Amino acid sequence: MEVYFDNAATTRCCDQARDAMLQVLSEDYGNPSSLHRKGLDGENYIKEAKNHICRTLKIRDSELIFTSGGTESNNLAIIGTAMANKRRGMHLITTKVEHPAVAAPMRYLEEQGFTVTWLNTDGDGLISLEQLRDAVTPETILVSIMYVNNEIGAVEPIEEAAKIIKEKNPETLFHVDAIQAYGKYVIHPKKIGIDLMSVSGHKIHGPKGTGFLYVKEKTKIRPVIYGGGQQRGMRSGTENVPGIAGMGQAAKEAYQDFTEKQEHLYELKETFLAGIQEETWAHVNGRTGRDSAPHIISLTVDGVRSEVLLHALEDRQIYVSAGSACASNKPAPSAALQAIHVKKEDLESTIRISFCSENTREEVAYCLNALREIVPMLRKYTRH
Amino acid sequence: MEVYFDNAATTRCCDQARDAMLQVLSEDYGNPSSLHRKGLDGENYIKEAKNHICRTLKIRDSELIFTSGGTESNNLAIIGTAMANKRRGMHLITTKVEHPAVAAPMRYLEEQGFTVTWLNTDGDGLISLEQLRDAVTPETILVSIMYVNNEIGAVEPIEEAAKIIKEKNPETLFHVDAIQAYGKYVIHPKKIGIDLMSVSGHKIHGPKGTGFLYVKEKTKIRPVIYGGGQQRGMRSGTENVPGIAGMGQAAKEAYQDFTEKQEHLYELKETFLAGIQEETWAHVNGRTGRDSAPHIISLTVDGVRSEVLLHALEDRQIYVSAGSACASNKPAPSAALQAIHVKKEDLESTIRISFCSENTREEVAYCLNALREIVPMLRKYTRH
Repeated sequence: MEVYFDNAATTRCCDQARDAMLQVLSEDYGNPSSLHRKGLDGENYIKEAKNHICRTLKIRDSELIFTSGGTESNNLAIIGTAMANKRRGMHLITTKVEHPAVAAPMRYLEEQGFTVTWLNTDGDGLISLEQLRDAVTPETILVSIMYVNNEIGAVEPIEEAAKIIKEKNPETLFHVDAIQAYGKYVIHPKKIGIDLMSVSGHKIHGPKGTGFLYVKEKTKIRPVIYGGGQQRGMRSGTENVPGIAGMGQAAKEAYQDFTEKQEHLYELKETFLAGIQEETWAHVNGRTGRDSAPHIISLTVDGVRSEVLLHALEDRQIYVSAGSACASNKPAPSAALQAIHVKKEDLESTIRISFCSENTREEVAYCLNALREIVPMLRKYTRH
Repeated sequence: MEVYFDNAATTRCCDQARDAMLQVLSEDYGNPSSLHRKGLDGENYIKEAKNHICRTLKIRDSELIFTSGGTESNNLAIIGTAMANKRRGMHLITTKVEHPAVAAPMRYLEEQGFTVTWLNTDGDGLISLEQLRDAVTPETILVSIMYVNNEIGAVEPIEEAAKIIKEKNPETLFHVDAIQAYGKYVIHPKKIGIDLMSVSGHKIHGPKGTGFLYVKEKTKIRPVIYGGGQQRGMRSGTENVPGIAGMGQAAKEAYQDFTEKQEHLYELKETFLAGIQEETWAHVNGRTGRDSAPHIISLTVDGVRSEVLLHALEDRQIYVSAGSACASNKPAPSAALQAIHVKKEDLESTIRISFCSENTREEVAYCLNALREIVPMLRKYTRH
């Protein structure tokens, strides 16, 4: 049995997305900027993908910018709004548990003279709304908070955060990195006060190299990439039509039978958690209930290095993650795990298990059995 | 007969590229940053693509950065080197016939306080090497010149330019936008003194949403997109593995039987030129011999608006371009055509015909016949 439990790193492209891409690559390959029919074909794929995505978010198609992925979306959101709004203020707020695709642009802006407040979290990875309230000032141009933490599955209080931000300073923009949340939650950004929201295609069974940024109408933002003026000048470059078509299909699929899929993910998680609970060598980081993300489990296995465990599981065709896999493959101590005060020795003994709706209870049982066999064996060879 | 003569706008993805993408999308979908076998699979596709590409350019794989396309490659080359080298000087040089993906980043840098010298061209779209020599100063950090002009197929004197630049200031970096040249010419950038070179996947029968930038080792450059540190920190974001695999295959294909393909393109061009020569209503912009690009013809049809002609040809399933199709689909007067002093009334009467190696002489004959039938008819309805 092959068990792929690394869906927070990337997912298998779904058949609908793949088929749409095939059609575009080989048949309807026109450049959307071309004035002839083949160009129009390309443009129509983009329009269709926009429709699928906008429907899931209840936004207008003019509020969507296609990018090359979640990282570019975050860069455009953060650097783009900072550069466009710096006359209003030079202060930004984010958290200590963000993905590097948010943290790194923030550090770049610090170099450029901006001030960034890095919010702490509690032991479950959750920010304090009081600390957020205190942090927002008249100089604050942007707050960026992730929806679902990619390492421990913490779900930040986005809706409450939006209210507080807008109460304190109605001019402050609110960006949400929803890369681990889109497809797992119904999100209506406009309704809950989100001004910008980043999504990645390959986390929702779409193709790699695709993503989008929701930008609420009238939000001041500068492009990061300049050129031919595609996408109203906000993101130049020939649109990745096959990728966009694929992502559109994946978005549509993700929200079909959504409640059942979400419930299924929670059941997988609960099955896993119930099975691991009895094991004295295992503990789970962060919250584990329905107030946590349905698809992510951060598991510390006492006295076993995560890389060793990862490869032992791999020998049984079970694929999990050591760390977040979103950084380069040089493993470094996880910022999020450090921020939630995981003990130093546990940092290197933590794996991430992440499900998709195609996973089954049988796979969970198979993984639990494997852990029960492997871990005691590995612990024998470890000094305590 | 369907005749696609808009290959400078975009090309059909070749079967080898499509098949590689399919395999990656559906089977070998791991995240290259994942430490398990599926991650390794992804990484291997990247390595293989690098090998294919590096072999065509005679460069090292550490000198290649994958991007989301030609536009991003140009942005990274220009903004990235300007920001990394501004302490050495704030002067850049480019030409008046560049693609917007070069011109727009240059204008952005002008806003940021850099000075840009915009070189003129002659009536054939060629820069003056003397003017280039005069323009390079001790403050010049970057020169950016396109290899093949996307609108008229002019081939700039890249090798001579490189020599002159390095003679005048060995510290000045030389960037070449080779988006219309790669696959049509054998280019060894390192050997001829190019420091950075941009390429797009979808112009060589690879997928849209892919491209790369050659960056000579030790060249100082800053990223444009920040995040997880992929690609040695120069381009963060999960690599577009299916796209990269596809582009790798396309690059390999482009240089297989290269001489025959190039010869075939020139023969198509020469056949077209011979056929149109007798028509008094037609004239070709720029050079037309083997000193021009093998695949691009800029054709002015007196007294007929290019859009009208484009749609009339489209009715016969012949697809050409009005303007460059690389800008947004709001048609604007072409900068390149203006730079080569095409008369105002001719600017709006110019189409671009661009071949790929799959095109045939029969298609050229079919297009010539169509033009001979359509143009006199359209000219009847036009005021002179």
